[in-house]
Amino acid sequence: MSEIDKKITCDMQSALEVLGGKWTFLIIYTLLDGKKRFKELERAVIGINTRMLVKDLKTLEEHRIVKREAFATIPPTVEYSLTEKGRELEATMRALNNWTIEWFYKKD
Amino acid sequence: MSEIDKKITCDMQSALEVLGGKWTFLIIYTLLDGKKRFKELERAVIGINTRMLVKDLKTLEEHRIVKREAFATIPPTVEYSLTEKGRELEATMRALNNWTIEWFYKKD
Repeated sequence: MSEIDKKITCDMQSALEVLGGKWTFLIIYTLLDGKKRFKELERAVIGINTRMLVKDLKTLEEHRIVKREAFATIPPTVEYSLTEKGRELEATMRALNNWTIEWFYKKD
Repeated sequence: MSEIDKKITCDMQSALEVLGGKWTFLIIYTLLDGKKRFKELERAVIGINTRMLVKDLKTLEEHRIVKREAFATIPPTVEYSLTEKGRELEATMRALNNWTIEWFYKKD
């Protein structure tokens, strides 16, 4: 394995540490069509629980993939959106979605 | 959320159940450049242990993403390669790799 390949694998491994979870892709995919509130995200990502959503959003924020904005409304509201870095994952998401539609259920 | 969006999310969720693990992407990415023996894969996917590699390869085989071929050599040898369905994940892998190189380490 060449040194370059090793670097690529290590870099992708670091990225997958952040993105690799089953829910993370779906959170990012859901935010592709615009900012969402916590409850909206929780409804859209079918099967996720509150604790997992809080944890994954925090990780995505730490890595500047998701942005959290709080508004001093009454009651206060919080919105989540993709940063530029997050939006750049669209190509990956669309490619995965295309593969899923065309290939995932094929058996032969 | 439209019915179509729900279906997309459910389908991607099923695909991510199979692909979502941190190691699975790396196994597929490593097999993109050709068939590998078990030990070759174990060395290439830095940090994976034997048990995880056995488990992930089995899952990928069950979903016809990876093919396992045994040869009656002495000692017997086994090779793993991507099926057509597996190779179609190349676009997703390349997109993720491009994002990783260009964006993953960016902080602002």
